[in-house]
Amino acid sequence: MDPNALSKAFVEHYYTTFDTNRPNLAALYQDGSMLTFEGQQIMGSQNIVTKLTSLPFQQCHHSITTVDCQPSGANGGMLVFVSGNLQLAGEQHALKFSQMFHLIPTPQGSYYVWNDIFRLNYA
Amino acid sequence: MDPNALSKAFVEHYYTTFDTNRPNLAALYQDGSMLTFEGQQIMGSQNIVTKLTSLPFQQCHHSITTVDCQPSGANGGMLVFVSGNLQLAGEQHALKFSQMFHLIPTPQGSYYVWNDIFRLNYA
Repeated sequence: MDPNALSKAFVEHYYTTFDTNRPNLAALYQDGSMLTFEGQQIMGSQNIVTKLTSLPFQQCHHSITTVDCQPSGANGGMLVFVSGNLQLAGEQHALKFSQMFHLIPTPQGSYYVWNDIFRLNYA
Repeated sequence: MDPNALSKAFVEHYYTTFDTNRPNLAALYQDGSMLTFEGQQIMGSQNIVTKLTSLPFQQCHHSITTVDCQPSGANGGMLVFVSGNLQLAGEQHALKFSQMFHLIPTPQGSYYVWNDIFRLNYA
């Protein structure tokens, strides 16, 4: 699978899971995984999912605007850079966001998220 | 130097160089370095600087809003995620941008840019 197709497939899977079954995101992280969410640093799959499931909104929908990717040079890793819109239920305007993921291949031929940095882009 | 201080120092150095002496950015990249600029993929220090110096504006000023960093797991590498505003000379409104760098340490104790992904955040 070429890197662009792979990163787009990952991004689609990630945000669909986020929008429909947030606790299942746990499967995409490992114990050493890092999330920086609006400047807050969190480590480990369980802590990350606790953070993501405790955000102050239940229903949301991510729309992706751009996906860029590059090989990271780390054990077949891949950097994925996303920009998009986050629509919260009941809110009139979508929020713009940027997010980057560092994906590392697993022995099973899949990928997990080693690094994750998320920022809203305030207008 | 702690990672946050180091990444802030790098970011300040990078954008000051960009805004005052763009050709000098060549020293921050190497032959295998990658830049994805608004979706365009460019490889190698010389090609990257040719791209950056041929952008259709001469004077600009970057203002940094946020800097986040995480260790990348690649040979002491560091991921740096930046959001900010780009003011072009003669333009009334600044452009919002997001950019990520993957920095790799050199044997001399400095860092170079292995990965660089840049996107404007259109309002």
